[in-house]
Amino acid sequence: MRAAVFVEPGTVRVEDRPEPVIEKPTDVIVRVTDACVCGSDLWWFRGISHREHGSLTGHEAMGVVTETGSEVSSLVPGDFVIVPFTHGCGTCSACQAGFDANCRNGEPGGNAGYQAEYMRAYNADGALVKVPGAPGDYSAAMRASLLTLSDVMATGYHAARMAEVGPGVTAVVLGDGAVGLMGVLSARLLGAERIISMSGHDDRAALAREFGATDVVPERGTEAVARVMELTEGGGAGAVLECVGTNQSTQTAIAVARPGAVVGRVGVPHDVDIDAMGLFWRNIGLRGGPASVTTYDRQVLLDAVLDGLIDPGRVFTAEFDLDDVQEAYRAMDERRAVKSLLHVSDS
Amino acid sequence: MRAAVFVEPGTVRVEDRPEPVIEKPTDVIVRVTDACVCGSDLWWFRGISHREHGSLTGHEAMGVVTETGSEVSSLVPGDFVIVPFTHGCGTCSACQAGFDANCRNGEPGGNAGYQAEYMRAYNADGALVKVPGAPGDYSAAMRASLLTLSDVMATGYHAARMAEVGPGVTAVVLGDGAVGLMGVLSARLLGAERIISMSGHDDRAALAREFGATDVVPERGTEAVARVMELTEGGGAGAVLECVGTNQSTQTAIAVARPGAVVGRVGVPHDVDIDAMGLFWRNIGLRGGPASVTTYDRQVLLDAVLDGLIDPGRVFTAEFDLDDVQEAYRAMDERRAVKSLLHVSDS
Repeated sequence: MRAAVFVEPGTVRVEDRPEPVIEKPTDVIVRVTDACVCGSDLWWFRGISHREHGSLTGHEAMGVVTETGSEVSSLVPGDFVIVPFTHGCGTCSACQAGFDANCRNGEPGGNAGYQAEYMRAYNADGALVKVPGAPGDYSAAMRASLLTLSDVMATGYHAARMAEVGPGVTAVVLGDGAVGLMGVLSARLLGAERIISMSGHDDRAALAREFGATDVVPERGTEAVARVMELTEGGGAGAVLECVGTNQSTQTAIAVARPGAVVGRVGVPHDVDIDAMGLFWRNIGLRGGPASVTTYDRQVLLDAVLDGLIDPGRVFTAEFDLDDVQEAYRAMDERRAVKSLLHVSDS
Repeated sequence: MRAAVFVEPGTVRVEDRPEPVIEKPTDVIVRVTDACVCGSDLWWFRGISHREHGSLTGHEAMGVVTETGSEVSSLVPGDFVIVPFTHGCGTCSACQAGFDANCRNGEPGGNAGYQAEYMRAYNADGALVKVPGAPGDYSAAMRASLLTLSDVMATGYHAARMAEVGPGVTAVVLGDGAVGLMGVLSARLLGAERIISMSGHDDRAALAREFGATDVVPERGTEAVARVMELTEGGGAGAVLECVGTNQSTQTAIAVARPGAVVGRVGVPHDVDIDAMGLFWRNIGLRGGPASVTTYDRQVLLDAVLDGLIDPGRVFTAEFDLDDVQEAYRAMDERRAVKSLLHVSDS
């Protein structure tokens, strides 16, 4: 089969690889219809973080089940499924608490192999999200929105949930990448009255507004903090979504929070310093991590997409065939695309 | 009037000082009936933190209103009131969000002067908690419980609320001082099924069990973590209350949390290092700070005391007359008392 492979920093390519097989009775094999590139993939694409050369890539996909392990009870061949980057078993203490990204029955090693014609998905009953019908039943726009439920939409939603966004709240969203934009959309879905996007790029700010941002603050650092304080009459925001992960972004997130508010963070932290005393005296909370993808999809996000309440698929501003995977990465690396969609097969 | 005064590390004494007067139209004057010593007072009593010599002491009291400012509308002379250490105005954005300790209309400078015959309380309508009847209507035990609503009970409750203790949860409480014991009682009040007190002192462990602890773990550090993991079948606790503030206690709190759980902290942090990455990958939250005393008293704690649902007054294991204030501090400093109550006047 064709599968995207990491060659070296700056280069991915499609190679011919053996099709995956059922390894455990709880596995399924999925024929991938659509996959995509994640902002977090840029860390190794740019050579900043390590990735094994020759390893398969991708951790966001959807497709059709072709084979099921002997213990899989909720899926049969032909089912259309979203394959989250998480693999929650659904039964351990972490999954039961709704934190399937921290499942105690995960497989060691990285998450990979979603940018390929076929993939093996483990903990299938617990983790996969069944979609009614078949891929061909949906418009391209709807398919794009469904694909975001494998990671990016759920990740933005995690930031919003951890930040306790609710009706009437003023939410600040740090980051205008795909996750930040999904954070804006999630804040709107959860009823935020005012959504301040800290976007510094006109094209992304425009998309943020379409997703529900009521204000855009392009400033950074102390100027950004001053601007948000002005917009909140000196009180700070009731919910803050940190979708970047840098120290500056995290400090800004904390600084713009109203006493008692929670900074919901989904940006993987890079050299972030936390002032334990400063947070304490201001009663600011810090919460977040890898998203509860399956939990959120099944609870609310799949219905929200199917019912047309949200249209997260608009975050894909470029589309490619699997064979053009290198260009899909480069478009994101060079900021020509907010997020790249990969067509793998039609149905 | 008689008022307790800080002389030098290790010494407080009662001196004759002028009675306080109404300074702002939102002030009231309270004739103090009962006051107490806070564990946080030991920092300056021991000379570890700075306090101005000759300054009045105390930040927990209750008593009877004797005079009201011209804009005070909810209180009249003769009203029996709890005087929280917080001074929330009730109307700013922080107070409206329920975080009255972070009121934007506070007076600068420290909180003091509650261990005295009379005290001035500002933001009276917003901050004070009216108790039905008069001090003389209540038993000594009930008065002691009411007095805890000025700080310590609300502080333990803040840890439990920030940690999101709810029905059926397993809660771990770090610290067996007065606040930690109130944390245990709060976890019980909020419906925790299992409450693990990390107490290393037999007398305090016994009190923790009376307040609702189902298990006691006297170990510290990695042994303590291993013990809690054993008690939670390797999953960790669904809620963790950090009522100490040291780095070791905070790291233990984080380590025993189940993925997705929140460490609710009320121990003032001293040299605490937060591992931003470690918290993130495990989806552990960190939240807390000075307690929402007035908010909690009015919402739930006053009724819980008056209805006999909780008996936090048992945390006072020693009682003194105001004139013996030095002994009240020493009893806590030398760990002879969990918490010292000060009788100021009978009614």
